[in-house]
Amino acid sequence: MIKIALDAMGGDFGVPVTVPAAVEAVRVNGGLELILVGDETQVQTELKRLGAANEARLSVRHTTQTVGMDEAPAQALRMKKDSSMRVCVNMVKSGEANACVSAGNTGALMATAKYVLKTLPGIDRPAICARIPAVKGHTYMLDLGANLDCSAEQLLQFAVMGSVLVAATEHKPQPKVGVLNVGQEDIKGNDQVKGAAKLLDGSGLNYIGFVEGNDVFLSDVDVVVCDGFAGNVALKTMEGASKTIAHFLREEFSRNWMTSISAAFAMPVLKALRQRIDPRKYNGASFLGLTGIVVKSHGSSDAVALRNAIEVARLEVEEDIPRRIDSQLEASLSARRTA
Amino acid sequence: MIKIALDAMGGDFGVPVTVPAAVEAVRVNGGLELILVGDETQVQTELKRLGAANEARLSVRHTTQTVGMDEAPAQALRMKKDSSMRVCVNMVKSGEANACVSAGNTGALMATAKYVLKTLPGIDRPAICARIPAVKGHTYMLDLGANLDCSAEQLLQFAVMGSVLVAATEHKPQPKVGVLNVGQEDIKGNDQVKGAAKLLDGSGLNYIGFVEGNDVFLSDVDVVVCDGFAGNVALKTMEGASKTIAHFLREEFSRNWMTSISAAFAMPVLKALRQRIDPRKYNGASFLGLTGIVVKSHGSSDAVALRNAIEVARLEVEEDIPRRIDSQLEASLSARRTA
Repeated sequence: MIKIALDAMGGDFGVPVTVPAAVEAVRVNGGLELILVGDETQVQTELKRLGAANEARLSVRHTTQTVGMDEAPAQALRMKKDSSMRVCVNMVKSGEANACVSAGNTGALMATAKYVLKTLPGIDRPAICARIPAVKGHTYMLDLGANLDCSAEQLLQFAVMGSVLVAATEHKPQPKVGVLNVGQEDIKGNDQVKGAAKLLDGSGLNYIGFVEGNDVFLSDVDVVVCDGFAGNVALKTMEGASKTIAHFLREEFSRNWMTSISAAFAMPVLKALRQRIDPRKYNGASFLGLTGIVVKSHGSSDAVALRNAIEVARLEVEEDIPRRIDSQLEASLSARRTA
Repeated sequence: MIKIALDAMGGDFGVPVTVPAAVEAVRVNGGLELILVGDETQVQTELKRLGAANEARLSVRHTTQTVGMDEAPAQALRMKKDSSMRVCVNMVKSGEANACVSAGNTGALMATAKYVLKTLPGIDRPAICARIPAVKGHTYMLDLGANLDCSAEQLLQFAVMGSVLVAATEHKPQPKVGVLNVGQEDIKGNDQVKGAAKLLDGSGLNYIGFVEGNDVFLSDVDVVVCDGFAGNVALKTMEGASKTIAHFLREEFSRNWMTSISAAFAMPVLKALRQRIDPRKYNGASFLGLTGIVVKSHGSSDAVALRNAIEVARLEVEEDIPRRIDSQLEASLSARRTA
């Protein structure tokens, strides 16, 4: 049985989204147990409404505080010791849960996770990793915003973490790792990416060299490592670009009666396209490099999206990702010492 | 009459693209004169083939060298003093041309332009600026790859340059300027963007604060400033994202006979969408901050794309962009001194 603590108060909607997602998740997966962490009255009311008050694999842990979506991380860490978010992370630390999932304030969750769980030996700072839809399927990218300035050593650590995650969860023994840069030639780039390239040569990872922003989608790279500034810019740029294309498509289809008729004909295709790039399918960013498993769900997640984040956490528990990162890091460092 | 020197040998295709683009450009615009810089025999042969050998507003300047697309910028600068690219830039310096356009090697063009033309007083380094399609029309973004690490002062200079370009060419008196960041809150970001935000407050520019990757497309910001690393990543990410969506759309429309029929119905709409985000329409990146006007056309440009780059250069000559940047920079610096 895999036990996951779910921050029932997190995200833009809280209980009306988190509780239905939890109910559905345990109904779909018989090997999953969820602990709903938050205001007991609110959670129980919602459980009753859904006819799930007696579901054996759902329990409630009462907490008295919540972390606001715009609250400063330091403030949350200091003042919100009984928040749903903090208690979730504490439960991972104590072993009461195998992982936790929260749709709450990203900065506060990262600060709490680092403070409570600590990083693995050899990891300077955790990174945020997510899947990106790509022509070949998808690509994993990290860091997406936790570390704005990264040293070459940190980029190497990200490469190890991403590589382990893809090898374990996608069953690809040697994932292709690339470093995000402004060109593919060795002479291109800033000191950090050039340094990371040197460290990655002979790290034992399947390092394929520098990749550019378009390669995230169009090449066969599996793991793209970058500092959190570039990663966050890339993530939000792709979101903006796809929304813009969707907007243009809508405008063109509603231009006149003829285009409106063609829209009706094209509806099944447009629906299939929407499903294919549905951000909810890609919800669930992993905080990698910690001693425990913490997954961040998008703040505006609905129940479908949140269930995907729960599934990300479940898979990481099943594959014991923190332990695997720990041993791969050891292997990569000793490979470099030998080289 | 506006005179533009065109690097006839530049780009992936050279003369078969550059000469037809030049012929069409002068035919469409009676106030434009183009100097085709490159191998005279090749250019004249192409001109004859197009029946344009006697076109009064097209002249040829013979050069003996070309800069390779992968040639190291330093090598091009030192060894290719009679290259089509170098002579184009020289002609801007001497005043024989009001601007130059090249589809050649970006690094070599930037190095040559900086060396020959120099930057304006108060500008540390030139930046690459281009238009990006957006929901509201388009957004200008700089730097797109010339300066990987940028100080707060450089970001301010980019803001001045972009603001001047948009004010003059789009006839917007107070363009909205944003600094690209990983969040909109003041506490977010690295030292450079925080420093730039401080400098921009009270610069006299219409500074609207931090913007994120999606805001480039979805908000009403006119000018987005960033370091060349983030800018290049954003530019290539949007390219990759839109190609991926186009790929998915093609796949979904060709899934079975029913979707193929709906594709036929949707064809006019898909064509309109393609035209709307056609990268050729957005071709022509400006090297801003130099004493003269240099426009870079994409290496793979066809004649249509190259004509758009020529039009970008023409407009910048008409609006006297370098002089305007010079005076706005002075005004912004003195506004800050007063503030």
